[in-house]
Amino acid sequence: MRTPRGTGPEPGRPSLSDATRGRILFGGDYNPEQWPEETWHEDVRLMKEAGVNSVTLGVFSWARLEPRPGAREFGWLDRLMDLMHEHGVGVVLATPTSSPPPWMGRLHPETLPRDEDGRTEWWGSRQHFSHSSAVYRRCAAAITEDLAARYASHPALTMWHINNEYCTFDYGDEAAAAFRRWLQDRYGTVGALNTAWGTAFWGQGYDGWHEVVPPRRAHYMKNPTHVLDFKRFTSDMLLECYTAERDIVRRHSPGTPVTSNFMPMWVGQDAWRWAAEEDVVSVDLYPDPRDPLGAQHGALVQDMTRSQAAGGPWMLMEQAAGAVNWRGVNRPKPRGLNRLWSLQAVARGADAVCYFQWRQSRQGAEKFHSGMIGHAGERGRAFQEIKRIGAELALLAPHVTDTRVTPDIAVLHDWDSWWAGEHEGRLSAENDYAEVVRAWHRALWEAHITTAFARPEHDLSAYRMVVVPQLYLLTDTAIENLLAHVRAGGTLVCGFLTGVADEDDRVRPGGMDERLRDLFGIRALHEWWPLDAGESVACDGFSGRLWSEEIEPGPTAVVEARYRGGELDGLPAVLRKGTARYLSTLPEPAALRALLAGAARSAGVRPVLDGLPDGVEAVRRGDLLFLLNHGRGPVTVEVPGSHRELLGGASVRGSVRLERYGAAVLAP
Amino acid sequence: MRTPRGTGPEPGRPSLSDATRGRILFGGDYNPEQWPEETWHEDVRLMKEAGVNSVTLGVFSWARLEPRPGAREFGWLDRLMDLMHEHGVGVVLATPTSSPPPWMGRLHPETLPRDEDGRTEWWGSRQHFSHSSAVYRRCAAAITEDLAARYASHPALTMWHINNEYCTFDYGDEAAAAFRRWLQDRYGTVGALNTAWGTAFWGQGYDGWHEVVPPRRAHYMKNPTHVLDFKRFTSDMLLECYTAERDIVRRHSPGTPVTSNFMPMWVGQDAWRWAAEEDVVSVDLYPDPRDPLGAQHGALVQDMTRSQAAGGPWMLMEQAAGAVNWRGVNRPKPRGLNRLWSLQAVARGADAVCYFQWRQSRQGAEKFHSGMIGHAGERGRAFQEIKRIGAELALLAPHVTDTRVTPDIAVLHDWDSWWAGEHEGRLSAENDYAEVVRAWHRALWEAHITTAFARPEHDLSAYRMVVVPQLYLLTDTAIENLLAHVRAGGTLVCGFLTGVADEDDRVRPGGMDERLRDLFGIRALHEWWPLDAGESVACDGFSGRLWSEEIEPGPTAVVEARYRGGELDGLPAVLRKGTARYLSTLPEPAALRALLAGAARSAGVRPVLDGLPDGVEAVRRGDLLFLLNHGRGPVTVEVPGSHRELLGGASVRGSVRLERYGAAVLAP
Amino acid sequence: MRTPRGTGPEPGRPSLSDATRGRILFGGDYNPEQWPEETWHEDVRLMKEAGVNSVTLGVFSWARLEPRPGAREFGWLDRLMDLMHEHGVGVVLATPTSSPPPWMGRLHPETLPRDEDGRTEWWGSRQHFSHSSAVYRRCAAAITEDLAARYASHPALTMWHINNEYCTFDYGDEAAAAFRRWLQDRYGTVGALNTAWGTAFWGQGYDGWHEVVPPRRAHYMKNPTHVLDFKRFTSDMLLECYTAERDIVRRHSPGTPVTSNFMPMWVGQDAWRWAAEEDVVSVDLYPDPRDPLGAQHGALVQDMTRSQAAGGPWMLMEQAAGAVNWRGVNRPKPRGLNRLWSLQAVARGADAVCYFQWRQSRQGAEKFHSGMIGHAGERGRAFQEIKRIGAELALLAPHVTDTRVTPDIAVLHDWDSWWAGEHEGRLSAENDYAEVVRAWHRALWEAHITTAFARPEHDLSAYRMVVVPQLYLLTDTAIENLLAHVRAGGTLVCGFLTGVADEDDRVRPGGMDERLRDLFGIRALHEWWPLDAGESVACDGFSGRLWSEEIEPGPTAVVEARYRGGELDGLPAVLRKGTARYLSTLPEPAALRALLAGAARSAGVRPVLDGLPDGVEAVRRGDLLFLLNHGRGPVTVEVPGSHRELLGGASVRGSVRLERYGAAVLAP
Repeated sequence: MRTPRGTGPEPGRPSLSDATRGRILFGGDYNPEQWPEETWHEDVRLMKEAGVNSVTLGVFSWARLEPRPGAREFGWLDRLMDLMHEHGVGVVLATPTSSPPPWMGRLHPETLPRDEDGRTEWWGSRQHFSHSSAVYRRCAAAITEDLAARYASHPALTMWHINNEYCTFDYGDEAAAAFRRWLQDRYGTVGALNTAWGTAFWGQGYDGWHEVVPPRRAHYMKNPTHVLDFKRFTSDMLLECYTAERDIVRRHSPGTPVTSNFMPMWVGQDAWRWAAEEDVVSVDLYPDPRDPLGAQHGALVQDMTRSQAAGGPWMLMEQAAGAVNWRGVNRPKPRGLNRLWSLQAVARGADAVCYFQWRQSRQGAEKFHSGMIGHAGERGRAFQEIKRIGAELALLAPHVTDTRVTPDIAVLHDWDSWWAGEHEGRLSAENDYAEVVRAWHRALWEAHITTAFARPEHDLSAYRMVVVPQLYLLTDTAIENLLAHVRAGGTLVCGFLTGVADEDDRVRPGGMDERLRDLFGIRALHEWWPLDAGESVACDGFSGRLWSEEIEPGPTAVVEARYRGGELDGLPAVLRKGTARYLSTLPEPAALRALLAGAARSAGVRPVLDGLPDGVEAVRRGDLLFLLNHGRGPVTVEVPGSHRELLGGASVRGSVRLERYGAAVLAP
Repeated sequence: MRTPRGTGPEPGRPSLSDATRGRILFGGDYNPEQWPEETWHEDVRLMKEAGVNSVTLGVFSWARLEPRPGAREFGWLDRLMDLMHEHGVGVVLATPTSSPPPWMGRLHPETLPRDEDGRTEWWGSRQHFSHSSAVYRRCAAAITEDLAARYASHPALTMWHINNEYCTFDYGDEAAAAFRRWLQDRYGTVGALNTAWGTAFWGQGYDGWHEVVPPRRAHYMKNPTHVLDFKRFTSDMLLECYTAERDIVRRHSPGTPVTSNFMPMWVGQDAWRWAAEEDVVSVDLYPDPRDPLGAQHGALVQDMTRSQAAGGPWMLMEQAAGAVNWRGVNRPKPRGLNRLWSLQAVARGADAVCYFQWRQSRQGAEKFHSGMIGHAGERGRAFQEIKRIGAELALLAPHVTDTRVTPDIAVLHDWDSWWAGEHEGRLSAENDYAEVVRAWHRALWEAHITTAFARPEHDLSAYRMVVVPQLYLLTDTAIENLLAHVRAGGTLVCGFLTGVADEDDRVRPGGMDERLRDLFGIRALHEWWPLDAGESVACDGFSGRLWSEEIEPGPTAVVEARYRGGELDGLPAVLRKGTARYLSTLPEPAALRALLAGAARSAGVRPVLDGLPDGVEAVRRGDLLFLLNHGRGPVTVEVPGSHRELLGGASVRGSVRLERYGAAVLAP
Repeated sequence: MRTPRGTGPEPGRPSLSDATRGRILFGGDYNPEQWPEETWHEDVRLMKEAGVNSVTLGVFSWARLEPRPGAREFGWLDRLMDLMHEHGVGVVLATPTSSPPPWMGRLHPETLPRDEDGRTEWWGSRQHFSHSSAVYRRCAAAITEDLAARYASHPALTMWHINNEYCTFDYGDEAAAAFRRWLQDRYGTVGALNTAWGTAFWGQGYDGWHEVVPPRRAHYMKNPTHVLDFKRFTSDMLLECYTAERDIVRRHSPGTPVTSNFMPMWVGQDAWRWAAEEDVVSVDLYPDPRDPLGAQHGALVQDMTRSQAAGGPWMLMEQAAGAVNWRGVNRPKPRGLNRLWSLQAVARGADAVCYFQWRQSRQGAEKFHSGMIGHAGERGRAFQEIKRIGAELALLAPHVTDTRVTPDIAVLHDWDSWWAGEHEGRLSAENDYAEVVRAWHRALWEAHITTAFARPEHDLSAYRMVVVPQLYLLTDTAIENLLAHVRAGGTLVCGFLTGVADEDDRVRPGGMDERLRDLFGIRALHEWWPLDAGESVACDGFSGRLWSEEIEPGPTAVVEARYRGGELDGLPAVLRKGTARYLSTLPEPAALRALLAGAARSAGVRPVLDGLPDGVEAVRRGDLLFLLNHGRGPVTVEVPGSHRELLGGASVRGSVRLERYGAAVLAP
């Protein structure tokens, strides 16, 4: 994290275009090893019917490929690769390393992760590997090597998929040794570690590297920088697992792009760093169909994934045709929603729309997770919708692949800040970073303003306006970056609890960086006043929740809204100095929307379309205008001028009607 | 579970009648080792006063009988057996094996159970034994052998009681070895296990038996069939513990019946299998006096226990004279409730009404669990009520013992289905199997229709109507059984999420067995739509909760109620084809009652009595009619004809008045 | 606990006066090792400005003093002691033993505590020491010895502070051995232990000491006396740790008083026993600024601490200038509240008003815990208030130090009873002892009646009235003490669930001690009727919550209030016999206040002042009258006669006006 750099694929590397070649990839995880071979032939017939052109093979197949140490059983996979090729279906081939075979845990128990409490995570589920285990890494490299050697030149191969949803923590002894090495790399001396962690507090001073262990169960609160570094370490160890396998497959097939699928806005991996190591940025996305803001959650993840792909096309690796099975209550997608959300992904830059999984499993832990073909089979409502989506993506492909979405506004987001802000000794457990980011993105989304995401250290010159929902920890580089943005005339809107801590999670003097205080015209930040769950605070014209602050403004600040009543009566809720604004509370949704839309307007940023009915989302990609109706009734959308609607082929003049969950894609 | 058979005691074996001999057993657990011997004499005096004719001795007495390995101290028990005999009180003698002495855990730590997380369950409470431990089993057999040898011919002995409320799980290494043996017996080959468990999913394939462990803590969801088999295994291991001790006592006293007490509708033991191994089926029953449906809960457990006893008399082994002490808030029974609920047990087939415990303990973990003599002592309100109950049971005994309750309706219930349905990856965590069964039984109970319970594979020919609240997992045998019932003209009412999985928890094609879909006229089950907590769905004439389904009816189905509004508007909520009905939601209580009462009426099944006031329960046992007023005010019940009321001795013509918590037992 | 005795410092020992010498100590924990030495000079400048005269050094400094086994680094502390002395700031010097250096856990893992589940508490936080560890105790003694030898004669030293907030439990093997020794001391023979614990219940009989372990994780409820003794043992082991270090520092500086800081009403230490071993009783106090009853909570802890100091002055060791950081939502103190609550402590007997900590940390787990100088620094609102407090305490000091608060009413409180009442098998989990004590204290506080706390065995002759909110466990000595108080004409008001159990947690015959039943005129206690959360029961003129009882009064009792409606209709809710009252429910606040105020009036006890407005607290200390306005608006208080107001210096005749959070200190 000390050398910030831009994201996006390395120059000269293959990219998603090498796999799409003018098509939108459509398909999903395919696990034919769960089915008799006669089903495979049924599968290819139905794939053709549905327009499937891509499947992901081999995720979780380690025990099948290497049923005992050193064995290799590739025959079944050979047959599948050939079968896919024969039917014109490309293969994203996965390394199987996210689920080691039972023999590994039995013969090498140290490969199993230990949690904070010292409890073992046994085999019998998935992801039961320690990222730091030498045995695991050696075995993973060996199977990857053989897989790559065998299939690098197979004509069905279009992409490599490394592991799956990396997400394991390990507090065991081998991880402890790796953690010490990682810390030595970071700090050089134990003295530097003591300084960075502030071990003078509570007498935690270390006298040598050998004394450092992961932040295991303790009597009371742990050292926050210790915990923060352990999160950084974990993300880095998993990334090492990834790059080790990536380098092997690259060696065998330098022209084939490589990816590993992210979970949506997942706290465990610093995806900015990860994305820089990927040829294709891919993500798994499962909004809750019950969630009235499910579409906004989708938009957020899509905006973030696109931004990690440096604005270029990205891959929706997994979504669900219907229900998932890991929520408390798992609801299917109502008629039309799968199509609508698939088109939303394309609108926001996806050139691949894939599912977990092709055919719903009859056994195992996810047999109630839907598939493109569900338990209801070919005549099931879900598969009928899949066929329609396949056909429409084929229609759209020539118009959209490799085109770009180009927002004028960037939302800053950072994993270090997220991690540091989560410490158990924080000001308020009600302050959930991800919720705050969602609230700000929602305000812009509802204002029909398309946004990018950026890391605080990124080059921000492409954006007229930058918003910071909350960045508790900011490096000096990031602070200077913000100052430069404003100095250059850019607009900045910044939420509370930003710039509080430095890179080591050391509180900056004044409780907020002095340069930022100057930027916003804050003379003193006397006290943070977090609010209770359900509590709100009255401000001029709106109510705030979650937070408030006792701020003394400086003479150059314009107070745009004040607290009314309560202990903070008359103190500033919203401060502005020039083009920089600071919000010391979280305004209610409509107020935040109005505030950000107003700031955007002043910055010269307009909504995608004016006068949109409630629940309609509009996005421009290349020269296409996507209109998506998330409402449950039909609406008419005014669209100035004449267009051709690509899905239905109709001409559109002045307005277009969208059915419930309907969509239109307008070309000039 | 592969060879379904009828329940009920083995022919030729002794039964409860051998212990009752025309009396209703009345008494309870007796733990005189907690008291000085002078209290024993006080006890027998008060037992006589209360009409106590049975006590259970020796539960938890292992440390007293064998204070160190191999020692035997029987003197105190000799004196007690003699004392009981001298005063005409029969003894249900327990093996003490549910609470091993401290020395066992200390000398043989492997006898202590380990939980899913590997944590040891230490001594100092009770039930700290591993069912798979060779040492435990050997020591349990030895003390049982000596106990049986010593008391088999004692004249006070009326019944053997093995262990107490079997309920331990063990995930430790000795249990792991036993689990592997059990799996080998079940599957024969590892390949068959892999097939049954669907280990192709998530790459869990086993290469040898030695790789299989209990479903210990894992990173994510476990394999559902692995978990299901572990529940089956646990029930079977506990059953092996039981039968090993049973066989010993049988050898010594073949004419004395043997039991082990169930907990009420307890998830951990497959009571159908267990009951088949018992001479007497007994249960512990503790409805919450605060629960407005406490009486229905009692009725359900009593109906189930009676059904496990093949319809014959059963034993209420434990109930509370007042409060228990294991709820959050433990309320005593108000005046009259102990009597009312005791009579309810008799009405529903009990020939033994016993308590935990005779005299409330002054020390130990349950000193706030009431006794027949509570802390308030002889003059306490609770003991006064006990005396009345004792007297009334003596009055009733000649009229009821060995008579039967003969319902026309069976509710199907199955442990395999319960277990499988609980998997963490299920469709909805709101769907609680036991709650659904309770809701259906309640509907019938409130309609004054007495029900039996049956295993899905049982012979159903005795029943005009069968109801299936929910059987997620159904064997082929069970499905054929249901089809045969309907083919033979029987009525069937079946709830949602039935017939989804086969014996291995493999989802059946179509998401519901095709034969069942045909039976109900369902063309396709497109999607399950579970509802949130507190959510309801409007249907024709009622509202449903918990569940809904996207069903496409076939042409032969009659849609009796449709969903109204929402995503499923117009789709069938209740389907009927001939005498078979399917409910895809859980109707609100009054609607489910009306629906089931209507179906019963069509099937020729009438309520026990018409026109009963709210809160009054009516049950026929033999030729007696029990009327039980669960309401808190007096009521008058119309009863056609003339009867003799057995409790008060009055003649009844046309109607009878019941006080608050009052009861009447009418003989023709 | 078998030899009750009075509390208060040993005669002839130094006391708080030796440290205050006419001043009120003002200052706090000072951790300059977290800061560069230039900050130290800034610190002393600001201390002078704020009137700070005392700091606590060395808490948690072990790793700094002994960075590796046997090393000693005192130089930094020498400089600090000299610096403090040079600037006239006294030093409370702490032994650093609450946070062992990392090397100790690494080299001696057995020094780390194990919890109930066997999980280790690792270093990296604080308090990670086993009270029973021989290594820990030896190392702690060695560093204490060297610290004491070095600084015993330093002129800055005013007091010794041993460890910090003792609070660790340990279930590990070394603790098990210590537990066995403690039990041998208590019981002599295993037989006596079996009798005291009632191990006949559930067959828990021990055959030898070696079989006894701590009450570790078990299958079901543990033996309550086992658990109770483990709590007694834990408090005693921690006390041994304390006295061992105390004896060392005493040896080196017999004239310097010794303390260890309590947490407020903390369940883990029997503070009556502890206080008897301290020269100065000190406490940490952190009411939640959001809590409308925060001031009452403060008053309660202050009353209890003063009582532990035998009524003499006590030390407020830690409070917060603003927010803490360990609640879910941590709110700062609004303007004026820090001053108000500081004055409250003085009013209730404190001669030392100190903070955690002088300067808010920038790093570590508590960097969001406020300091006297917060992140906002010198100009911060918090520090401005600190300066005012410092100045006012200096004004007050000559008038208050060493004067006394002398209440006429004692509230009985006992740790044994608290511990025993918490058993998992209790009657109601809603019955929280601390909440009940708070409710009773609140009633008296709102009635403006100042109270003492006393142990049930204390000499009660100084009190006109004694109240017992709830003492589930009472020794015979305590019962005789209560009887004697009433016999001597004293007034007694006693809450439910009192006198239920004896010293071994054995239920007394009748469910309540017979002598107490006689005292209150109770013929029989038939049943306890605990109420649900949110449930209430109507009584004559008020409603009760939490509890009710089925009581049969004797002929000599006066029933002052009866239950109305429900199962207990007409039974007594409040009983009186002479000057002894029994409450079988918890009356709503206003009713309990009226009841206790009425009883006090009859006993000749008057409020501090009549006619006080809502929210105003009045306390007399010596001849001063403190008036504290906890309300958020200004009020006028009528005060008969003429006074001098010490804070503002004004003359007061007849009435005084108090601003929001304002205070007045009136001298005659």
